[in-house]
Amino acid sequence: MFFSKDSSLCRPHLERQEFCKKANCAVRHFRRLIYYLDSATNTLDICMYFLTSSILVKTIINAYKRGVVVRIVLDESMTQNDGSQIMSFHKEGIKPKFKQLDVLMHHKFIIIDNNILITGSTNWTMAAFFGNFENLMVTNESRLVKPFINEFEKIWAMVNATVNVMETDSKTHILT
Amino acid sequence: MFFSKDSSLCRPHLERQEFCKKANCAVRHFRRLIYYLDSATNTLDICMYFLTSSILVKTIINAYKRGVVVRIVLDESMTQNDGSQIMSFHKEGIKPKFKQLDVLMHHKFIIIDNNILITGSTNWTMAAFFGNFENLMVTNESRLVKPFINEFEKIWAMVNATVNVMETDSKTHILT
Repeated sequence: MFFSKDSSLCRPHLERQEFCKKANCAVRHFRRLIYYLDSATNTLDICMYFLTSSILVKTIINAYKRGVVVRIVLDESMTQNDGSQIMSFHKEGIKPKFKQLDVLMHHKFIIIDNNILITGSTNWTMAAFFGNFENLMVTNESRLVKPFINEFEKIWAMVNATVNVMETDSKTHILT
Repeated sequence: MFFSKDSSLCRPHLERQEFCKKANCAVRHFRRLIYYLDSATNTLDICMYFLTSSILVKTIINAYKRGVVVRIVLDESMTQNDGSQIMSFHKEGIKPKFKQLDVLMHHKFIIIDNNILITGSTNWTMAAFFGNFENLMVTNESRLVKPFINEFEKIWAMVNATVNVMETDSKTHILT
């Protein structure tokens, strides 16, 4: 899937959720993305630099509500971004993880049911989907998917280790 | 290929061009990238948001010097980036193309000999290779490569159309 400056022309028909005749209609791509997220039955593992699209956040929350295990890692900068949607996740019981880093968590990938990988240059923001020149790849080829699964597990363990240390520290007075 | 905060630990042995025992040694990945660029015999099509790595720029210039047709599209912001290496390209006769855009040329892909695609979250900067959490995918599967070839041709036609208009404008007094 490719997005370009022309994608901005498709934004007006996003509300109607209709796609136009253009092969690269951004609404068509966007709906395809939602279709894949809606197909999740077990797990959604998300590692994303910027995630601000309220429509996609809602779709992720819907997956969580139907019993899908949702794990999200975002860049630390998202905690200071007004459009980050972190509160929407927290309100529903999903707690995105962050690690304080002096470098960027620059990935833009999700893995659905340990089977489908969606990755590319595209952050999940409306500016990216409806304006920038971007690409997004969807594959279920295990040679490509498996390394991303392994990498997500590593990153997840890393961010949880950090959180655990922080939690232990804050409970020091009770524990000792 | 994955890069992480640990990649910064590998940066010191970059000068020696040696890789360490880590499976994700960033120098190992970096050398692999250079290996692919060095393998180019016909064409190098590059569409990149940030391209500041002088080592990779040198590798691209070397490809050009051995007769490879090099086409480069960069984001407009690169014209104002001190580390952009645009002058290095121009000095050798390679003219990267830009289009004045109010949106980002956010791709990070290259195509070697219309056969190998390298794409992912990684801009070609030393910060990305030796610090950030990033991914890079290398594939010669035509189902994945072909759409990127088509997209590059579209973008190349677009940036050239813009350049032509500008050139025509500047020659108006001579032409009329």
